[in-house]
Amino acid sequence: MILKARKIPIKVGQKYILVLNERTAHMLDVHAGDRLAVQNGSKRITCIVDVTENGEIKDNEAGLYVETWNVLKADHGDKMFVTLAEKPAANMYIRQKLDGKELSRAEIDTIVKDIVTDTLSDVEMTYFVSACYINGLSDRETTDLTKSIVEHGNRIKLNKKIVADKHCIGGVPGNRTTMVVIPIIAAAGITIPKTSSRAITSPSGTADTMEVMCNVTNNAAKLRKILDKVGAFISWGGGVDLAAADDKLIRVRHPMSLDPKGMMLASIMAKKYAVGSTHVLIDIPYGPQVKTQTLEQANALKKDFERLGRMLGMTVKVIATRGDAPIGRGIGPVLEAIDVMDVLANKPSAPQDLRKKAIFMAGELLELCGKSKKGAGAILAEKLLNSGAAYKKMNDIIDAQGRKKMPKVGKFTFKILAEKSGTIVGVDNKLVSHVARVAGAPKNSGAGVTIEKNLGDKVKKGDLLYIIYAENKNRLSNAVEESRAKVYIIK
Amino acid sequence: MILKARKIPIKVGQKYILVLNERTAHMLDVHAGDRLAVQNGSKRITCIVDVTENGEIKDNEAGLYVETWNVLKADHGDKMFVTLAEKPAANMYIRQKLDGKELSRAEIDTIVKDIVTDTLSDVEMTYFVSACYINGLSDRETTDLTKSIVEHGNRIKLNKKIVADKHCIGGVPGNRTTMVVIPIIAAAGITIPKTSSRAITSPSGTADTMEVMCNVTNNAAKLRKILDKVGAFISWGGGVDLAAADDKLIRVRHPMSLDPKGMMLASIMAKKYAVGSTHVLIDIPYGPQVKTQTLEQANALKKDFERLGRMLGMTVKVIATRGDAPIGRGIGPVLEAIDVMDVLANKPSAPQDLRKKAIFMAGELLELCGKSKKGAGAILAEKLLNSGAAYKKMNDIIDAQGRKKMPKVGKFTFKILAEKSGTIVGVDNKLVSHVARVAGAPKNSGAGVTIEKNLGDKVKKGDLLYIIYAENKNRLSNAVEESRAKVYIIK
Repeated sequence: MILKARKIPIKVGQKYILVLNERTAHMLDVHAGDRLAVQNGSKRITCIVDVTENGEIKDNEAGLYVETWNVLKADHGDKMFVTLAEKPAANMYIRQKLDGKELSRAEIDTIVKDIVTDTLSDVEMTYFVSACYINGLSDRETTDLTKSIVEHGNRIKLNKKIVADKHCIGGVPGNRTTMVVIPIIAAAGITIPKTSSRAITSPSGTADTMEVMCNVTNNAAKLRKILDKVGAFISWGGGVDLAAADDKLIRVRHPMSLDPKGMMLASIMAKKYAVGSTHVLIDIPYGPQVKTQTLEQANALKKDFERLGRMLGMTVKVIATRGDAPIGRGIGPVLEAIDVMDVLANKPSAPQDLRKKAIFMAGELLELCGKSKKGAGAILAEKLLNSGAAYKKMNDIIDAQGRKKMPKVGKFTFKILAEKSGTIVGVDNKLVSHVARVAGAPKNSGAGVTIEKNLGDKVKKGDLLYIIYAENKNRLSNAVEESRAKVYIIK
Repeated sequence: MILKARKIPIKVGQKYILVLNERTAHMLDVHAGDRLAVQNGSKRITCIVDVTENGEIKDNEAGLYVETWNVLKADHGDKMFVTLAEKPAANMYIRQKLDGKELSRAEIDTIVKDIVTDTLSDVEMTYFVSACYINGLSDRETTDLTKSIVEHGNRIKLNKKIVADKHCIGGVPGNRTTMVVIPIIAAAGITIPKTSSRAITSPSGTADTMEVMCNVTNNAAKLRKILDKVGAFISWGGGVDLAAADDKLIRVRHPMSLDPKGMMLASIMAKKYAVGSTHVLIDIPYGPQVKTQTLEQANALKKDFERLGRMLGMTVKVIATRGDAPIGRGIGPVLEAIDVMDVLANKPSAPQDLRKKAIFMAGELLELCGKSKKGAGAILAEKLLNSGAAYKKMNDIIDAQGRKKMPKVGKFTFKILAEKSGTIVGVDNKLVSHVARVAGAPKNSGAGVTIEKNLGDKVKKGDLLYIIYAENKNRLSNAVEESRAKVYIIK
């Protein structure tokens, strides 16, 4: 059938979509989600059909969004020849996964390839996510999914015997341990490329905090250069497409906040595998208010990571840590960056809990990489910190990535005082994060909260508990309003 | 945040969508699939966010498709106030269903309401379909889903003690039994409102076949009038929105051809429940080439239907019939309509297998409704047929719906002859349907196939097996090409 091209002046992402009115769809005997092969002159592509009411799009017209219009080199009124196209091969395998079948490496590969090339519609990807969520992924499937995601994304190939990485399954406010550990490890001469994420529901991700000091959007070639120069980077993962398929899947996982275990494992490990990591330390905080609520859950996840690591040929060590209370003082991009730099600069005012946790973690990773004997890692880590070597390395990393002047902290502040005397027996992590977000973090980088007293501290009525920082009055008063709910339990 | 309105000149269905570029989405801290409350003057609606590359849609602009633009009474450049909106309540219940929970009536109701009002995105509906497919629906959930679909759709309320219906789980080419049964039952004085579907993958649905003789797109008020006048109708279900939620779910089920059992049962029974059916006869053809492949499967489905019927307060009888071979002579809208009218007019040339099956089915339904004693239904059915009462009733129905002149059969024909002598031991139903579709059915209503010999017949080499009808030469030659594969197995 011949259809006339009509431009729809908007981009909708990379998928090729062809919009028909109901009558034309009926004539062609196609439904929304079907595929048509479209030929315009010498250009030929496969499009996913979208069906709209009769009206704007006329009979025998094909509405083409900008991407489709451009790739078909279409002009208004061009006569295009359309024929029914087959469903992608991935659909059959997704259907089989819905039916509980275990997928082969080749089948997973087909699905991942069709995701990366934008061949699958969101509805089709959603079926895949659902099937993986409900029916689960075997260890072998998870390993294959990880490899497949890496092979269909960008990679950074390094010729190093040891490439370290450190990862934290977030959820603890202020916990910027990674930004202290990376320069310590790099200062020990170990290559450590670190891609990190931005905040989705938290007041700041590692990438957001790093971004107040330097550029974090770097492509693979740029990261490669930084690594050659200083042996480490702390950059935003989204800038380098190490796991393009994963990013696309996350989009359809988002509305239902769905985290199929195998996909979550593959998502994390793919980014390590893609940069050739050989030794990976993973921190799983657990507690009633973080994702992993109990030690049992943390231990189960630990086994999953270590098993997947073995199947990928990596040495993976997982440490379950308590996640009951914030770590560090600041919560929010600038406030956290100040903490990190204070710890690295050995300032007496630096938050000691962050320093301790970072030394412990760095020590474990140094031992894992064979840089120190069992039990001596923390000593080496502390030495690298105390000597200023880690601080110098961090400054080298910041300069290599492109230093920026750090913004100031929010000038509108409000102090929350203890309403009674006693011991702090609980800190509501979720509420702390919420207050910091309402105050403006991470968008307003100087906004957030500083923790002045923490779990276990004794306080007197009127003592300072925490300070809210905002960049404007409106945000501040909203955050103060939210902080009426009890962040601290004092008994 | 304030966004400037910008029109995107296309309709995309009823969902309210707001398109942001990546930078604006980042500023607002929203992702694709999130919801924003949008206020323009006194108009306020909730929109689903779509995120597009930076480019066509500028920073701080909100792209609005025609429906959204109109409902917001927007003008180009209008300043609209947007704030983050909650996810619909349905999302939480869909998530619980993904986690294997059995949903309550109220929870199902919330989901169905959010589907009907276009509150849920396609991705969210897909999660619901996946969860129902993999985790299944209990009998109670299926009953509640059926009731909920009916309550959120149009209904035809009749004040009749007995309202009959007859349904066939398709798959058998030419099987237009329903169109003979309905006038027989109506001629017996029983009210029988029949909504039917159009072909999706077959050469003709009951609605397509009926449509060559009269109008089949009628709203509820019109159907009510027809029923009052002649006691029956055979109309297209899509025209009356008896199960709007179901129609929307089918759209996301289509790409994966997914038929979750509970949804399929609810889909069929909702349409009976919505017209107040009290006595329902269901025909489940089984055979290697129809959806229900074995008698065991047919019997399991029979139990499902009868149980659901009981829970809905309906009397449901299910009959499993053999579906190994086409029924009747014609396959395709006009060719099937000719068969139906020939049977009703008692023409000696009428296909006797169709007549026999219709008498049997009508007899069963007459007994079910208490119009005849056990075992005497078929005798009454045959009497109503032989007397011309059913034929007259069919003509009354056609006139009441709006008679049309029946189109001619396709003038391009090709005869397929037996290549050897023997007995026909197999007929490939799927291939027969495929040939009829390639010949042009159902779009070209005069196209299709007539079966001249059927399963069990003895043939001599050169005997006429079937004739292909098409409305143009091209279609005919394509169909002849497809018919090279063996439709008949002769031994």
